[in-house]
Amino acid sequence: MAKVAAYATASAKSPLAASIIERREPGPDDVVLDVLYCGICHSDVHQARDEWGGALFPMVPGHEIVGRVSRVGKNVTEFAPGALGAVGCFVDSCMHCEPCSEHHENFCEKGVAYTYNSTEMDRKTPTFGGYSKQIVVKEHFVLKVPAGLDVSSAAPLLCAGITTYSPLRQWNVKQGDKVAVVGLGGLGHMGVKLAASMGAEVTVLSTSRTKEADARKFGARHFEVTKDPATFKKLRGHYSFILDTVSAPHDYNAYLELLKPYGTMVLVGVPPEPSPVAAFALIGGNRKLAGSNIGGIKETQETLDYCAAHKIAPEVEIIPIQKVNEAYERMIRNDVRYRFVIDMASLS
Amino acid sequence: MAKVAAYATASAKSPLAASIIERREPGPDDVVLDVLYCGICHSDVHQARDEWGGALFPMVPGHEIVGRVSRVGKNVTEFAPGALGAVGCFVDSCMHCEPCSEHHENFCEKGVAYTYNSTEMDRKTPTFGGYSKQIVVKEHFVLKVPAGLDVSSAAPLLCAGITTYSPLRQWNVKQGDKVAVVGLGGLGHMGVKLAASMGAEVTVLSTSRTKEADARKFGARHFEVTKDPATFKKLRGHYSFILDTVSAPHDYNAYLELLKPYGTMVLVGVPPEPSPVAAFALIGGNRKLAGSNIGGIKETQETLDYCAAHKIAPEVEIIPIQKVNEAYERMIRNDVRYRFVIDMASLS
Repeated sequence: MAKVAAYATASAKSPLAASIIERREPGPDDVVLDVLYCGICHSDVHQARDEWGGALFPMVPGHEIVGRVSRVGKNVTEFAPGALGAVGCFVDSCMHCEPCSEHHENFCEKGVAYTYNSTEMDRKTPTFGGYSKQIVVKEHFVLKVPAGLDVSSAAPLLCAGITTYSPLRQWNVKQGDKVAVVGLGGLGHMGVKLAASMGAEVTVLSTSRTKEADARKFGARHFEVTKDPATFKKLRGHYSFILDTVSAPHDYNAYLELLKPYGTMVLVGVPPEPSPVAAFALIGGNRKLAGSNIGGIKETQETLDYCAAHKIAPEVEIIPIQKVNEAYERMIRNDVRYRFVIDMASLS
Repeated sequence: MAKVAAYATASAKSPLAASIIERREPGPDDVVLDVLYCGICHSDVHQARDEWGGALFPMVPGHEIVGRVSRVGKNVTEFAPGALGAVGCFVDSCMHCEPCSEHHENFCEKGVAYTYNSTEMDRKTPTFGGYSKQIVVKEHFVLKVPAGLDVSSAAPLLCAGITTYSPLRQWNVKQGDKVAVVGLGGLGHMGVKLAASMGAEVTVLSTSRTKEADARKFGARHFEVTKDPATFKKLRGHYSFILDTVSAPHDYNAYLELLKPYGTMVLVGVPPEPSPVAAFALIGGNRKLAGSNIGGIKETQETLDYCAAHKIAPEVEIIPIQKVNEAYERMIRNDVRYRFVIDMASLS
């Protein structure tokens, strides 16, 4: 076992603080990554504070990880020391069930091993995330960082990127489609960039005009304010696809009415409580309300490759790890444009 | 104008009673049908009693109509006097908008002219349904009744049939798929017959075992009772498709959890109130909650042709029109297996 510097939290009420964790000796299939950058996802806050229940402490959050390979096991063929590598929301799965064999490891029937606040597939060994100097991950679950991606801003692609890329692909968003992105945060800003790059005519639906200039810079053609009920009348039946990134409570029915017949709204945000859905909001236009949950390894790699090819990068504010607790507070009050990324060189 | 015998209701509180209505003289594109049979849909009760609001009185319900052509206008090419014809839930649309041109007249952007409790496209002339001796309908909106369909039981295909056929086709239900049908009423029993005919392994999910023998007769391989919470544990992640025909309040989340990853639940029943949907019930498996609303003329014809080819007929209880008020009461207490059809020969 190797002793590794990390930032951990000891309980739902504790701040994150410098700590030492143990990482396994790399096995024959493992890649050791020295973590360069780790994005801060909103779910880091929810889990560190046990807002979803069942949190495992001590916890080292972080599942948007970009690093440099320092060692590899003897069976590893795709990575060599010195190469870049990345790790997203999970680090292992059974690799044999139907979802795994269809490249949807995220839906592994045995339950995926999440990157942190979870266990390895032995269901005993806790997993620790990317707020640490080093991580040891089975090769299959390590992504390649293609040339052309800026290393310091790429980390959020591992969660915010795949989470928005996957539904746009699953639902075949294409040239000329009228697409709305609800909410312009960490997920939403990636949704806008990605949908616009696919040729969609993107509208941002936001509670206020604060972020309008940003939205247009990211590729949105329109910006509409959802606090104004007239917006919902004006845009009724307008979109073929809506990407809903909002995790605050909101009325799905109002947004469903903005869809054309056969349109789809995909949820990637998780509001704290269920939201009432009127059957007729769906039946009235053969509409669909769907969910989308990150993506498998293959599609995550596709996201990285796509973003490199299309020169798409998350908007990030790079911070030293000593500012992580402050960053959590700023995220909670929506004071980030659009994703914090920890420069792990700050941790020694 | 022709005077036509009908059964009408004068207000939300009145029973249906013999009445005389006027039908237009057939124009060059019109088909005059002498109504032979008319199914009773649950929505007839809702509308006759103004339970959905905005009802137009006097009202002649009925949108599951099979008749015999008695006259045709000079431009009519597909129907001749003596032929059978059928009419479903709508009798006109703009025929030019995007949905109309894509064979989805039911989603006409100008608003379809429903068969009753609606107006013609002039938005003035009220439409009257099939509880009448005769109906005059533009040729495009008249369906052909293929040889092989039993005339006395075919009427429910015009609403219950297309309403269940359309989502099974839209979502590509096929050989070997594990499909659940929730509720075994007018819609559900057609859903079971149709899904089974497409090769699906069908389970009926019902509140009690009362209809189990019927379900199996219609082609269901399994029958599970939803009053028992253990059912939901046992069947978690089991189905690729669920057809939810229930219009009583129920918890969508519990049923969504029965879907495999990427599975779809389609609502065709309309509960009286919205039902809370937890984002995670969808996100947790890239699941979809969709609605489906009857179908266009092309697909309605496909339904009739499919049922003739596969020898699928609704289960009906044929009644004289004088029993229509009693039939409404029996439907409300779920005392019908599985659809009432009025023999219009009973009205003179």
